Amino acid sequence: MSPRSSSLRGGAGTADQVAVRRHNLAVVLEHLRLHGSRSRARVAAETGLNKATVSSLVSELLGRGLVTEGAVERGGVGRPGLVIDLDGSTYAAIGAEVNIDYLSVIVSNLRGDVVAEQRVPFDTAASDPRDALQRLAGLVRDALATAGPAAPVGLTVAVPGIVESATGRLVKAVNLGWRDTPVVDLLVELLGGPGYPVVLDNEANLAALAEIEARGGAAGRDLLLLTGGVGVGGGIVADGHLLRGARGFAGEIGHLQVDRDGLDCGCGRRGCWETVAGLGALLRRAADEGDPVRDPNVDLLGRLAEVRRRAEAGDQRTLAAIDATATWLVSGAASLVNVFNPDVVVLGGYFAVLSRWYVPRLQQGLAEQVHAPDAGGCRVEVSTLGFAAAMRGAAHQAALAVLEDPVALPFLDATDESTGVPT
Amino acid sequence: MSPRSSSLRGGAGTADQVAVRRHNLAVVLEHLRLHGSRSRARVAAETGLNKATVSSLVSELLGRGLVTEGAVERGGVGRPGLVIDLDGSTYAAIGAEVNIDYLSVIVSNLRGDVVAEQRVPFDTAASDPRDALQRLAGLVRDALATAGPAAPVGLTVAVPGIVESATGRLVKAVNLGWRDTPVVDLLVELLGGPGYPVVLDNEANLAALAEIEARGGAAGRDLLLLTGGVGVGGGIVADGHLLRGARGFAGEIGHLQVDRDGLDCGCGRRGCWETVAGLGALLRRAADEGDPVRDPNVDLLGRLAEVRRRAEAGDQRTLAAIDATATWLVSGAASLVNVFNPDVVVLGGYFAVLSRWYVPRLQQGLAEQVHAPDAGGCRVEVSTLGFAAAMRGAAHQAALAVLEDPVALPFLDATDESTGVPT
Repeated sequence: MSPRSSSLRGGAGTADQVAVRRHNLAVVLEHLRLHGSRSRARVAAETGLNKATVSSLVSELLGRGLVTEGAVERGGVGRPGLVIDLDGSTYAAIGAEVNIDYLSVIVSNLRGDVVAEQRVPFDTAASDPRDALQRLAGLVRDALATAGPAAPVGLTVAVPGIVESATGRLVKAVNLGWRDTPVVDLLVELLGGPGYPVVLDNEANLAALAEIEARGGAAGRDLLLLTGGVGVGGGIVADGHLLRGARGFAGEIGHLQVDRDGLDCGCGRRGCWETVAGLGALLRRAADEGDPVRDPNVDLLGRLAEVRRRAEAGDQRTLAAIDATATWLVSGAASLVNVFNPDVVVLGGYFAVLSRWYVPRLQQGLAEQVHAPDAGGCRVEVSTLGFAAAMRGAAHQAALAVLEDPVALPFLDATDESTGVPT
Repeated sequence: MSPRSSSLRGGAGTADQVAVRRHNLAVVLEHLRLHGSRSRARVAAETGLNKATVSSLVSELLGRGLVTEGAVERGGVGRPGLVIDLDGSTYAAIGAEVNIDYLSVIVSNLRGDVVAEQRVPFDTAASDPRDALQRLAGLVRDALATAGPAAPVGLTVAVPGIVESATGRLVKAVNLGWRDTPVVDLLVELLGGPGYPVVLDNEANLAALAEIEARGGAAGRDLLLLTGGVGVGGGIVADGHLLRGARGFAGEIGHLQVDRDGLDCGCGRRGCWETVAGLGALLRRAADEGDPVRDPNVDLLGRLAEVRRRAEAGDQRTLAAIDATATWLVSGAASLVNVFNPDVVVLGGYFAVLSRWYVPRLQQGLAEQVHAPDAGGCRVEVSTLGFAAAMRGAAHQAALAVLEDPVALPFLDATDESTGVPT
């Protein structure tokens, strides 16, 4: 794990023994999460920690229910011994999503495996926020019941809007019609004081977190996620960490102004990027009003499948619409690559569904239009997580609180607390 | 200091005693640098380190020539005692700048005080890079001779172009006409193997570093510097750290595409932000060809002073030119505030010279056009460092290597090494 994400990051300006131990607990846990079960000796060799330290750390992680020990490791050069592994069963992290036409919840274990999932169609924009969140709270309860006895460590809720993370308030979500909504306060109340932290975050931010997590470090530390929907959302990972800005409002890349004389945007400006590169722009160009692909009552994935079918069949109007949108996609993406110099641009949302056309256009466009040579080294990839990315990121973020600071958890067995753990 | 900037950041994934000590040495040094001389007891109280640790750290810092001890502190509640202070005289950090019409060098001590300065007019674009760097190397030698016996800890060179930090190569500087120039290799050779690190960085990045340093943390951790020159440069500080991107090319904000049908830009695209908000756009609108304010042979500061004089006198063409440029400044700046959500936008370069007109326009424009309410909390400020910002940032960056990792320095007195310093 990156030292920056350790418990050394947040506290006072001095690092002491306690902080070092917390950091090293997280290092061992992260190592097991990423690389799977292995012996204490192997953990020591691979992390550079000494064996006695690893043993002491493992004792504490056992005490906290975060690792298991038992199976025999074979195939190494030394004699077989006990191996330790991340314990997926003790704790559960909850990710939830409120979106325009659905509500959904997943529960995952600390390994990131999904152990329960709930999803219902829901016309959020037509509903009172309280009613929507009451329904969501029900889904959370159902998902936890399905997940079994694992103790929930946190719930992160993804929303398509501007979020004030510190207060858990949704400042503005144009496409939901929500404004100044105390989502976290309402959810805590509706869940009856759940006893675990509830956090609100922007869907594109969380999707970017899921993308970098899914790539396991192979993509580098600088990733730009472009999610095409009615809006164009973005999640920016810089030097391995989500860019949030001073108040948590960063990442509103759909509101780059690319045409000052352009169409009105929901944000109050004209000619924002999402008015020309978003799904609305594609569908307006691709079909007349009344065409099913423009019918908001038809499931979005079905409409996109139909657009793709037409493009594959060589329909000229559809291909021209994709082409026009791709030109704008390139314009804004090249600007952002000039600003961020990412290792990779990941296409999500409808860009991913139509990636066959967007990926080559974007690759060529970045090579031609980015100021730095060779597009600054930037690759173009397609999200493999699809529309579930935000919720996966939400669950991962809920898990991170524990994975990055295992000391935050209580001991499961009080007798363990007296063994080998310094204050 | 932020734990992230400590020596704990760069190394392996585990933190050990040596790393903790290095970190704490940097904490004490940074505390003295920011807050001035004080007793060991006071350092302990203010940093949270225990007194014995502080004494041991101070011994090491004394041994490394980084602090002095001696003057008596008065006025506290306890009895007067020895105070320690950052030693400004032992080490020197060098900042240099290669720009379109000048070369310059400053030498500063570790407190950031400028102790020597050299600046000469130089037509860089008309010169061979080797000749320009030979001249710069001469300035470095002269400045160090003026600075006295302080040992140089590093030289950072600011250039207006795309830099590959890892190799010290200037990839492209359109306005200098330089391309693929191994600036660091050439300088090391021309300085005769100087024995201290030589580093190349982008001028806007370094200027942003200087701005956040000059604000001493009061501006928050997220700052966006917009420097108006022939190009529009940007330095982005996110969560207290300069945003560099995967290959160090980040921050090319002048190449946001704001008008796809606009003017040709040196980067190969059309309608980049700097073609409409840069100095060239202002001067073209403000005066006919042949007017002295458009004469590249006249000193830039003099031309800008004349533009300001005309605006102050109410000249309608000048005011209209400023107004038109301000409209574009707002368009791009609001886009960037949507993306970054900074605490503050700092205007530098010609925007600062004409800040009387640009600041109110930008404040109003951000309030109206940024998607988040209240411009996401973003303030507008004017750089107080002027055109020297990049060089100040360069010297500060050279000093940071020592301030953040005092262990990198040799002991001045070998006998000190045996006292109180663990391996």
